[in-house]
Amino acid sequence: MNTATVWPNSPSHAPSTEELTALHAWWRAANYLSVGQIYLMDNPLLRTPLTRDHVKPRLLGHWGTTPGLTFLYAHANRAIAQRDLNAIFVTGPGHGGPGLVAASYLEGTYTQTYPAITQDEAGLKRLFTQFSFPGGIPSHVAPETPGSIHEGGELGYALSHAYGAMFDNPDQIAFTVVGDGEAETGPLATSWHSNKFVNPHSDGVVLPILHLNGYKIANPTVLSRIGDAELEALMRGYGHEPFVFTGGFDDEDPLETHARFAALLDEVLDRVAAIKAEAAAAAEAGREYERPAWPMIVFRTPKGWTGPKQIDGKKTEGSWRSHQVPLASARDTDEHLADLDAWLRSYRAEELFDEDGALRPEIAAAAPTGTHRMSANPITNGGAVLRALRLPAFQDYAVDVPRPGGSVSEPTRVLGDWLRDVVAQNPDNFRIFGPDETASNRLQAVYDVTDKQWNADFVPEDLEEHLARSGRVMEMLSEHQCQGWLEGYLLTGRHGLFSSYEAFIHIVDSMVNQHAKWLKVTNEIEWRRPLASLNYLLSSHVWRQDHNGFSHQDPGFIDHMVNKKAEIVRVYLPPDANTLLSTYDHCLRSRQYVNVVVAGKQPNPNWLTMEEAVLHCTRGLGIWDWAGTEVEGVEPDVVLACAGDIPTIEVLAAARILREEMPELKVRVVNVVDLMRLQDDSEHPHGLSEKDFDGIFGTDVPVVFAYHGYPWLIHRLAYRHDRNGRIHVRGYKEEGTTTTPFDMLMRNDTDRFHLVMDVIDRVDGLGTRSAGLRQRMADERIRARAHAYAHGEDLPEVAGWQWDDNADEADAGKGTIADTGGDNE
Amino acid sequence: MNTATVWPNSPSHAPSTEELTALHAWWRAANYLSVGQIYLMDNPLLRTPLTRDHVKPRLLGHWGTTPGLTFLYAHANRAIAQRDLNAIFVTGPGHGGPGLVAASYLEGTYTQTYPAITQDEAGLKRLFTQFSFPGGIPSHVAPETPGSIHEGGELGYALSHAYGAMFDNPDQIAFTVVGDGEAETGPLATSWHSNKFVNPHSDGVVLPILHLNGYKIANPTVLSRIGDAELEALMRGYGHEPFVFTGGFDDEDPLETHARFAALLDEVLDRVAAIKAEAAAAAEAGREYERPAWPMIVFRTPKGWTGPKQIDGKKTEGSWRSHQVPLASARDTDEHLADLDAWLRSYRAEELFDEDGALRPEIAAAAPTGTHRMSANPITNGGAVLRALRLPAFQDYAVDVPRPGGSVSEPTRVLGDWLRDVVAQNPDNFRIFGPDETASNRLQAVYDVTDKQWNADFVPEDLEEHLARSGRVMEMLSEHQCQGWLEGYLLTGRHGLFSSYEAFIHIVDSMVNQHAKWLKVTNEIEWRRPLASLNYLLSSHVWRQDHNGFSHQDPGFIDHMVNKKAEIVRVYLPPDANTLLSTYDHCLRSRQYVNVVVAGKQPNPNWLTMEEAVLHCTRGLGIWDWAGTEVEGVEPDVVLACAGDIPTIEVLAAARILREEMPELKVRVVNVVDLMRLQDDSEHPHGLSEKDFDGIFGTDVPVVFAYHGYPWLIHRLAYRHDRNGRIHVRGYKEEGTTTTPFDMLMRNDTDRFHLVMDVIDRVDGLGTRSAGLRQRMADERIRARAHAYAHGEDLPEVAGWQWDDNADEADAGKGTIADTGGDNE
Repeated sequence: MNTATVWPNSPSHAPSTEELTALHAWWRAANYLSVGQIYLMDNPLLRTPLTRDHVKPRLLGHWGTTPGLTFLYAHANRAIAQRDLNAIFVTGPGHGGPGLVAASYLEGTYTQTYPAITQDEAGLKRLFTQFSFPGGIPSHVAPETPGSIHEGGELGYALSHAYGAMFDNPDQIAFTVVGDGEAETGPLATSWHSNKFVNPHSDGVVLPILHLNGYKIANPTVLSRIGDAELEALMRGYGHEPFVFTGGFDDEDPLETHARFAALLDEVLDRVAAIKAEAAAAAEAGREYERPAWPMIVFRTPKGWTGPKQIDGKKTEGSWRSHQVPLASARDTDEHLADLDAWLRSYRAEELFDEDGALRPEIAAAAPTGTHRMSANPITNGGAVLRALRLPAFQDYAVDVPRPGGSVSEPTRVLGDWLRDVVAQNPDNFRIFGPDETASNRLQAVYDVTDKQWNADFVPEDLEEHLARSGRVMEMLSEHQCQGWLEGYLLTGRHGLFSSYEAFIHIVDSMVNQHAKWLKVTNEIEWRRPLASLNYLLSSHVWRQDHNGFSHQDPGFIDHMVNKKAEIVRVYLPPDANTLLSTYDHCLRSRQYVNVVVAGKQPNPNWLTMEEAVLHCTRGLGIWDWAGTEVEGVEPDVVLACAGDIPTIEVLAAARILREEMPELKVRVVNVVDLMRLQDDSEHPHGLSEKDFDGIFGTDVPVVFAYHGYPWLIHRLAYRHDRNGRIHVRGYKEEGTTTTPFDMLMRNDTDRFHLVMDVIDRVDGLGTRSAGLRQRMADERIRARAHAYAHGEDLPEVAGWQWDDNADEADAGKGTIADTGGDNE
Repeated sequence: MNTATVWPNSPSHAPSTEELTALHAWWRAANYLSVGQIYLMDNPLLRTPLTRDHVKPRLLGHWGTTPGLTFLYAHANRAIAQRDLNAIFVTGPGHGGPGLVAASYLEGTYTQTYPAITQDEAGLKRLFTQFSFPGGIPSHVAPETPGSIHEGGELGYALSHAYGAMFDNPDQIAFTVVGDGEAETGPLATSWHSNKFVNPHSDGVVLPILHLNGYKIANPTVLSRIGDAELEALMRGYGHEPFVFTGGFDDEDPLETHARFAALLDEVLDRVAAIKAEAAAAAEAGREYERPAWPMIVFRTPKGWTGPKQIDGKKTEGSWRSHQVPLASARDTDEHLADLDAWLRSYRAEELFDEDGALRPEIAAAAPTGTHRMSANPITNGGAVLRALRLPAFQDYAVDVPRPGGSVSEPTRVLGDWLRDVVAQNPDNFRIFGPDETASNRLQAVYDVTDKQWNADFVPEDLEEHLARSGRVMEMLSEHQCQGWLEGYLLTGRHGLFSSYEAFIHIVDSMVNQHAKWLKVTNEIEWRRPLASLNYLLSSHVWRQDHNGFSHQDPGFIDHMVNKKAEIVRVYLPPDANTLLSTYDHCLRSRQYVNVVVAGKQPNPNWLTMEEAVLHCTRGLGIWDWAGTEVEGVEPDVVLACAGDIPTIEVLAAARILREEMPELKVRVVNVVDLMRLQDDSEHPHGLSEKDFDGIFGTDVPVVFAYHGYPWLIHRLAYRHDRNGRIHVRGYKEEGTTTTPFDMLMRNDTDRFHLVMDVIDRVDGLGTRSAGLRQRMADERIRARAHAYAHGEDLPEVAGWQWDDNADEADAGKGTIADTGGDNE
């Protein structure tokens, strides 16, 4: 698929003493600027004696991890410059923010991005003051930091993000620092296995660097306390070739430390170059290339390296005490102020910066230039390199709908046909991610044109199973990995979707929080260009997990998402195949959103022709006049509203019962595709004005609303529109088990019979006839349950219910909605 | 702490051919019953020719993993009986439900628990029919399954649950099966490291068995495709001694397979016994005992072992095709029906069950009896072995409150004093779990009486840092582990709490979903006795993460929890130290809840004496008449309501401004501790009746409500009470960054000045004077922000604000609420 470029193979050489001296000076400069950011608001070059007034009143930041990060950054820079690498730097310990800001400042990127932060003393004062300061910049590596694609506030995703960034970027390398605290998290612990998925030829390279500085906030780290033998076994077990480095202890001459690490990094990068060359040669020759043992580095250095050895008589360098701000009383006590002064002066700023306060050119020369600077790599501002997808006209994939309910389709299977051609037309910037469910969710048409990318061992049968060394589908049984990979892919300017079971997408609740925050902040940063949206396809949803039972039944991800900023979040519940096509086309064109799409994979009646579907989806909601019995120009007696494929079926069934049993009752049917339309327009850009809301839902009539998820969400969304409490919502109220599909609805009072009863209970003046109908509805429920309990299946008339009595004939052989036997994932 | 009992050391012997034959028969019986449960609803002993009518109409279940589980269960039974072990079985691949139901049926436990499922043909028919059948039992291992503490629907927590169950159960062993699909999840990948936390002497034993059957739903598993060398390195890297077993391939004689596995398991259990003996000897001698390499088993067998080799010409045994129901058309086609018949008859049920349909006694004798049956181990019905905590009188830990706001405390630090004594008085059934934050959240008083349990390497400094080989505090930087350990601990009848940063508790959203579901279901199962509640202490909350920034700011866990069943969830927001004490005492006494407690760790004014606090917490909410200006017997003009420590401060500050500036305005101040009180009593057992609600919030006056979290939640909870939209809520609206505490409030319009403006905007008829006050309030906000941006800190009068002007004198030296310098975690 990819035309992998040749990996640069510039000859490396051991650095000279002059080069090491410049490298060391660059590191000292980065450390000096880091300490300055944490502590100082004035006197940035210490050209006058340090006083308390130069120290910030609130000392906020994290020193402990920072010098290790700057050391690695400096050495990566040497290698990049010498080898002409295209590299990014992923900072797992993202709280080491000052180090990354310092690096981009020293590279000039920071000043180019933020011209007020000049390369002189005044600029340094601003650089220092703004850090962790009101109106300034965050204390962590953040969207504000040039070159960053990874916040690192919530730990665990550095490797997943890095691999996501490297997919389809065959000429790139991600220096990826994994903190040893972060390494204890679950997501990080499994993300090492990403190396079984990356393709050595058509993808880029992730170089993991496990930064073993030994301590978290208040505890040692697990991986620093298992001995070298176990740690190396662990890394080999993860499929890596570990290179272990220890530095910063026992007063080693820093130039010696630099020389040793430079040699180790050269050995590692030579190994990388060899793998890339072998992979290219194999590709050229059409040979298989077995997964190599990718190198990784164990980097054991003291926490708070180069900082105060002791403070108040307690060990600080090499201890958890240097995690944050070691000299917390620098503004308050003479002792701490003096310690800070000595610490800052130990970097000898006068040798690093010239009279004006600019980095001396011989030191600046130690780093690469232009887009070879990791802080200026174009892929780290993904929107700037984003290419729009080539999208086949989704209308061409429409299913035929002779009349509402007149045909039956599996919506996600129809979507799969379109996605097949999206994949085919975008061979290098679109991927589908999922735990194990691309086929289970009926998207298997994509396998006509691509495979699942897999670089672990193969057996002969795999070839029939669409496993291959490269492909557009990424499946690993870890929602964290799928989410992290996709985020990394999007953040570097590509497109994708995540297909998952609805209940288990909660596994990534906290990850999507962070991505939504990233989008929110980047919306406020002019130089950050818009990214492709993060698209979910949640199938195998709550109503059709009757076979897997209660543990698989949870529609709450929607609730989770609507707490995010309104400008970020979109939620769609397309009721059939054509609306799903129209919705997903919109999602793949959109930017800077998180799009949550819930859609069924089971045979489902088709309600709208493609022309109607486009109209309906563009409106986001609408009256289905063919389904109701209202009279033009007159307020209906009741509104039956629905959102979600299964609630739509139940509402239409209820409407049909009412039409037959009480033809005089004026029923309006409303379907909602875009859930955010229910909000007030003051709250969400998709929200309705009061007038528009009343135009659809009537002004003073009862609304019986059947909703896909937890009923309260509808109240919450429509709150401002529902002054008089006329909206009555049915939905999933956490009642479930292993049972039949219709029994699931009954347990949650969301079945058609209950909806009819709800209408009867809410419309005044229906007279005595309604009492009889109400009782018959209650009887139908008893009958349905009794049948299910006796026979293990739903009554044919509820399972195979058809809106259109003629549909059977017209579409014989297309399957009916009762056809669920094969679905048992 | 624990008086560890002596590990049983019965001599083991290689099983005789007779024993192996009985073992094999037991396994065949378990497999036969499993297949029967998935497929049959009649003719359970195949005493008449199999017809389609005997087959269930909907075939729902998972065969693939089941025969491996039953094999392991059978062998565990042999070892238990021979060695007199106290064991439980944790089924990571919980979808292998039929296997575990079959095992407990064969052991007799099932019939004892459910007398209708008799040990005869009629009972077998019921056993088969009920499985995955409406009105029957779930398809997974579930609360309904005797002996289960682990559902396994959402994968990844088997080892965490098992270790949690084994803490403080020194005489127990957990045979813990980890599916190779599950092994790809993040939480499982890090949970192997639990062996660095378990104490070999005072805790029980987890024996992990990695069930490598090679396939997930549609893909091979990663760990089955990395070769034995990498896999063994991985297990050694995780700190285990791996024992690799391969069986079920190449038509090996089953008795030979059994003999080989029995020998391997004996070797493993001898190693376990040796470790326990060494640890006991070391404890006896007061010697250190270094972490051993605990044994684990790699168990490589075909997926769908003993099932059809091929179906429709496609490989089934040993393939992903046997994951669920291999013969999906058994009711529909003659071929599949015949295949099913042959499959069932291959187990030769006539040799296994007697005339009546009962298991033959010589086969039953292969399993242990009484509470040595894993399905009848008392700890798996935790509530039955639960001992109530000895709780010191929390009133004795009260802080002195001379008058409201007359003293200042750090609430969690005060709680820590009480928890210290809870720990001391309950040395073997109470633990505190947290990622790295027990001290950061100010609970460090507990270290006066206990330590952090740690069994990785030590360095000398650790001894000062409260690390020890056994202790009551469990810290690992994985919220998944903390949650999983705590769940396992609670499920086996103990008590605990989980202390976490508020934002990052979302990491376990999906886990707490499953625990809440477990509680909901067990409430409906009479024989399951109530468990101690799962208690959260969320400190470092949204309003005091100004230093860490936006990534650390998220109060949405409360929203997530309120979707659970009302009878399960409790949310408390104690506004000060005494209310926190009273709240937590209640939580530790409660059963079957998830208690979410959000409390600050920063210096905070104390508002209520202990007597008042108890009254207030018992009511759950109340009018603070000392803070308002209302006149008895007259409706107030406005209600200022608050929930959460910081909003309480702002509301009280706003009330004071109003009292001083507009003394004629009748202001009522309401504080809410128990958030569920805001619901209607029809929705939550803690809910208020309409009359009670109106009694507190007035009937028709505006309510300005300052809330800790996302404002919509208050609307959602109070929905039924707020017919006329008079409640106006301020809270966190996802605006944050690194800034000052007061600026955080201003960014979200929740500061005192804005609350005063909200009152002015909502109360009619305030006249012209209010316009001037409104403008002054707006000016105060500008002044506060300008000061923060210029000086990096809050204005002294907002940071050090005091309700009571005399407080300074009265409580000099106690610290003020401005004292936040030391908090930078």
